Amino acid sequence: MLKSTANYLKSHPGYVSGEEISKQLGLSRAAIWKHIGELRQQGYRIEASTRQGYKLVSCPDKLFPWEVQAGLGTKTFAQKVYYYETLASTMDEASRLATNAEPEGTVVFAETQTKGRGRMGRTWNSPKGAGVYFSVILRPGLGLSEVARLTLVAAVAVCQALRQVSGVDARIKWPNDILVNGRKIAGILTELQAEMDRVKFVIMGIGINVNTTSRQLPSTAVSLKMAAGRRFSRVAVAQESLRALESWYGIFLEKGFGPVAQEWKTRTMMIGQKVIFSDGKNTFAGEAVDLADDGGLLIRLTNGDVVKKMAGDVVLAVS
Amino acid sequence: MLKSTANYLKSHPGYVSGEEISKQLGLSRAAIWKHIGELRQQGYRIEASTRQGYKLVSCPDKLFPWEVQAGLGTKTFAQKVYYYETLASTMDEASRLATNAEPEGTVVFAETQTKGRGRMGRTWNSPKGAGVYFSVILRPGLGLSEVARLTLVAAVAVCQALRQVSGVDARIKWPNDILVNGRKIAGILTELQAEMDRVKFVIMGIGINVNTTSRQLPSTAVSLKMAAGRRFSRVAVAQESLRALESWYGIFLEKGFGPVAQEWKTRTMMIGQKVIFSDGKNTFAGEAVDLADDGGLLIRLTNGDVVKKMAGDVVLAVS
Repeated sequence: MLKSTANYLKSHPGYVSGEEISKQLGLSRAAIWKHIGELRQQGYRIEASTRQGYKLVSCPDKLFPWEVQAGLGTKTFAQKVYYYETLASTMDEASRLATNAEPEGTVVFAETQTKGRGRMGRTWNSPKGAGVYFSVILRPGLGLSEVARLTLVAAVAVCQALRQVSGVDARIKWPNDILVNGRKIAGILTELQAEMDRVKFVIMGIGINVNTTSRQLPSTAVSLKMAAGRRFSRVAVAQESLRALESWYGIFLEKGFGPVAQEWKTRTMMIGQKVIFSDGKNTFAGEAVDLADDGGLLIRLTNGDVVKKMAGDVVLAVS
Repeated sequence: MLKSTANYLKSHPGYVSGEEISKQLGLSRAAIWKHIGELRQQGYRIEASTRQGYKLVSCPDKLFPWEVQAGLGTKTFAQKVYYYETLASTMDEASRLATNAEPEGTVVFAETQTKGRGRMGRTWNSPKGAGVYFSVILRPGLGLSEVARLTLVAAVAVCQALRQVSGVDARIKWPNDILVNGRKIAGILTELQAEMDRVKFVIMGIGINVNTTSRQLPSTAVSLKMAAGRRFSRVAVAQESLRALESWYGIFLEKGFGPVAQEWKTRTMMIGQKVIFSDGKNTFAGEAVDLADDGGLLIRLTNGDVVKKMAGDVVLAVS
């Protein structure tokens, strides 16, 4: 309801009378008046004139469902959107919703996360209103051995979206980071619940530093604003990411991992680089030589052996 | 506390004075008196004589933590036990506890489940007090591709425990059923939560029909009592299962899948049998020829091709 009033104002620049909105939306004048009040409370600047009616001056930079969905053009992704000012973690909320049978493509946004997380229990910084933090529910008919590739599918998609929306030279660092000039601009976290070899659902979490300032981030991180020297509409970043995710997810399910791997290789900065790899137990040096068919990273050790790593940390070695 | 009083009475057949119990346990007479009342409420028959004190006549057939733990002899399994009269599902409760950092080996028992489940969203019948229904939290350092084997580890363990405790000719049906004379006597459900290729935890669920009557079960199922013609102590069945599970889990982690596969093959009734396999999409006929290294079932199709199945349903073909 609020959504329809907001959308009506957005699609009618200039003044529009309360009577006209009321007529077009089939709502009472009192309802329209209430909506205007609520929209103002949420940060919409709306001018009112007794003679001319209402005029939308500006929208808040918030990831409201109707803002994200307006002109989105996806088929399943974000057809259903849950929006929160604050969550402990969008991953947990999406997981809860998936357990309650919410459909594939359902998205959970939060303006800030109090316990945003990255891989291996690490923390993901989620300054309020500065980044785009969301989780998508996926229900792919994949076995456990195939599902790790989804992280790379997401990496390809987010990398493409960031390049498209901002022009920055975003690059993929295996397995789940997007870097600009060696600093982290976005992260991907893939979690899943399964029964034996049957995946119940996957939660794909995306965190993007959009208008985040250097003071809000660790020195190893960067934001779109810092990299490009200007602010970005978080709604636009979210939309472009959702479009790219739906598109690459579809390619992966229909055509397999081949096209994803190909794109991944053109967008990574790792292949051919000297790396130091750690899997929690062992640390060793080598050269990243290729991406394996199952999404693993192939590393040539100093003795010439090539090993495949499915999980762990890779650091680019300083030469 | 209640546990110590119960254990004291169990280890002292015949009358023992309240004063003696109080002294030995370092508890007040009032506390002992309160415990006796509580134990009676929970089904312990305790005779009291003003001159001689208390005498334990019988214990209820309930899976109280102190009953399951008494003389159990495991190292990690059931060192921590959660006990409920009724749960929707021990799987959900164990999963909740695992998320809250409960350690490996923690067990959840329920006397009955209102939404006990089997594979693929099927129902598991859990008549109150008739079977043994529990879930164990596991935290193996395994990748996603290795974890499906845990179901077979559990199958080997439960099969062994049932043979040991009752002498019935229990057999394994791939992947997760234990049969006696072709009817299901126990089921195994393995669920997990993972982050990419890193397993956060596995919940292993076991359901065993112990003293269940034929009226309480579908015609395709059987209980230990029905098969052996006598009742069994559910505590003994639970203990033997926990011991076997810990033992085979340890063998699997230390020595790999080899010894498990070997035992599995001697205990299955499938190899060499004509089967009909269904994976939800396709159904086909063939012969079960072997167990694959990753726990999959190898089936030779009528055209001679051998395919590996990781998930699905197998029905023995009637020849």
